[in-house]
Amino acid sequence: MITIASPEHAQHRAPHEFLDGRLIPPYESPERAEIILAAVERAGLGPIVRPRAFGDAPLHAVHAPDFLGYLEHAYGRWVAAGGDPAAVLPSTLAVRWMDRRCLHPLVAPGYYSFDLSAPIVAGTYRAARASADIALTGAALLLEGEPLAFALCRPPGHNAGSDMYGGYCYLNNAAIAAEQLVRSGAARVAILDIDFHHGNGTQQIFYGRDDVLFVSIHADPAREYPYFGGYADERGTGAGTGFNLNLPLEAGVDDARYLAVLDQALAAIQAFGPRFLVLSAGFDTFGGDPIGDFALAAAAYPAIGRRIAALGLPTLVVQEGGYAVAALGENAASLLRGMAAEA
Amino acid sequence: MITIASPEHAQHRAPHEFLDGRLIPPYESPERAEIILAAVERAGLGPIVRPRAFGDAPLHAVHAPDFLGYLEHAYGRWVAAGGDPAAVLPSTLAVRWMDRRCLHPLVAPGYYSFDLSAPIVAGTYRAARASADIALTGAALLLEGEPLAFALCRPPGHNAGSDMYGGYCYLNNAAIAAEQLVRSGAARVAILDIDFHHGNGTQQIFYGRDDVLFVSIHADPAREYPYFGGYADERGTGAGTGFNLNLPLEAGVDDARYLAVLDQALAAIQAFGPRFLVLSAGFDTFGGDPIGDFALAAAAYPAIGRRIAALGLPTLVVQEGGYAVAALGENAASLLRGMAAEA
Repeated sequence: MITIASPEHAQHRAPHEFLDGRLIPPYESPERAEIILAAVERAGLGPIVRPRAFGDAPLHAVHAPDFLGYLEHAYGRWVAAGGDPAAVLPSTLAVRWMDRRCLHPLVAPGYYSFDLSAPIVAGTYRAARASADIALTGAALLLEGEPLAFALCRPPGHNAGSDMYGGYCYLNNAAIAAEQLVRSGAARVAILDIDFHHGNGTQQIFYGRDDVLFVSIHADPAREYPYFGGYADERGTGAGTGFNLNLPLEAGVDDARYLAVLDQALAAIQAFGPRFLVLSAGFDTFGGDPIGDFALAAAAYPAIGRRIAALGLPTLVVQEGGYAVAALGENAASLLRGMAAEA
Repeated sequence: MITIASPEHAQHRAPHEFLDGRLIPPYESPERAEIILAAVERAGLGPIVRPRAFGDAPLHAVHAPDFLGYLEHAYGRWVAAGGDPAAVLPSTLAVRWMDRRCLHPLVAPGYYSFDLSAPIVAGTYRAARASADIALTGAALLLEGEPLAFALCRPPGHNAGSDMYGGYCYLNNAAIAAEQLVRSGAARVAILDIDFHHGNGTQQIFYGRDDVLFVSIHADPAREYPYFGGYADERGTGAGTGFNLNLPLEAGVDDARYLAVLDQALAAIQAFGPRFLVLSAGFDTFGGDPIGDFALAAAAYPAIGRRIAALGLPTLVVQEGGYAVAALGENAASLLRGMAAEA
């Protein structure tokens, strides 16, 4: 297998996030990517390469042009207008009956984001672009015949939709890669999201499509982020009806329970018959995660990897969440080891 | 004229608000109501009475039952779930494509509010209830034949919609009073909103109605709060089409310009032929206001009052915003003096 990584991720370092009424240190930190990279190196899982540059077109294939323009210029315009130089965060948001677009530099964050966990700093867009290029490089490797690639993306992506960001995510790396695979000729691509949190952005991007199956195993949103989407009855719309499968789970999920639900997800993917699999891989399902309430042991990750690899599909693993930093590197390496062993 | 006021407003004291990326001291403070009350007393504008108690029914006539239940219990549930005891504020919000209702105690604020300017503390609901009773007492006085009443409401109300709060507002006092007037037999009621900010909540509540005309003179939302609504092309919907008139204005508006636009608003009200007028009165149009960019002089307020009173309609003045605290009392008393002189 091949790992793709870039030091550009360090350009994005949030000073804080706002949660439960308080400004707190961010859970999503640059050391996450460094720790995963070190663990992958130690595990000797194959070459580690830098991303290629793909330009704007693959981003425009998934995200709205005004949204991309916003992300690129948000920080500079915010600071020039008197916003806190520490980071861009929204304070008034476009909601139900008040959702006209407003591009005022202090206010556009409230049009394009849905939470206060995703601050924008000077280097955020550069890091997000590099993160998308990492995923796109992984997709290119699959198209060139590699059976398994690991896109060590940071910032993560699965909470970012076509025109909104949040949940530590700005550009949807997994969706950008999946769309690139489709546009390169794959009739069907499946995305399996095993992050603890629902991949609401990925769901939204492909919700009306029957050529991209989205399957997500995650904490019940009635209890956990992102709360306002990710329920089992969200099955797709129009041509996409039946091509969105949410498997929300209760607190305390252990290895046996998780693997049983994973088998259900894998059966749906097998029935869909995709040409490629994109795996949105979060490790916040780990028992020790500070913002998760599942109870997976370290031993779950190689088992998860083996089962997914048993599908026999060329697979792009895209790094998403995971905040138990001490265990994060080993858990990621374990998943990949399980996948590589089976492949 | 009769003024209605209550010390209950002091139960609501926000510890902070979140604006432009920073937690800052709140502009909306208890001293605002005290200063206005003292100025009205000094001006000798007639009796000052306590509100009567109207119970739940008039609130339910305007607000959704789940929203009222949320407001009543939000603080206790938030603290019990681990939210910052300083105040309830949202961190993830229900938006465009992610708007399923979630009543998790740490998350419901993001379903029912649209900004981070309206913290809920232990006494917020009690104060908001008293504020609504103040407006309802004013409506009752009009129904009993009084030509002019001043509801010294705090917290203010015009940004609160049927199912959302924000902009320092929780219950929409002006809308609750107007609806009470309609239900008491008035075929037509007009609401004129002269707060600096658009009364987005009042607009939403009556947007489909032809028996309540809403006219608002305010800062262009492309430049000022509430940003995502309040534009000139929002004219009502269904039966309400043509019964919503927004007059958004540029920065630096002076007395002459304001009075000319006011005449336009008053002409629309006269053409509508209402039985009563409810005036949402904010004083953040004053040149010295810390969050407004109009340039009205103190002399504008008696002139505004005289022109409105010249309509000859029984009028309920409902206190909304105004944050230039040193001038706030005198500006409010001046408006009322102008109205009483003409009436």
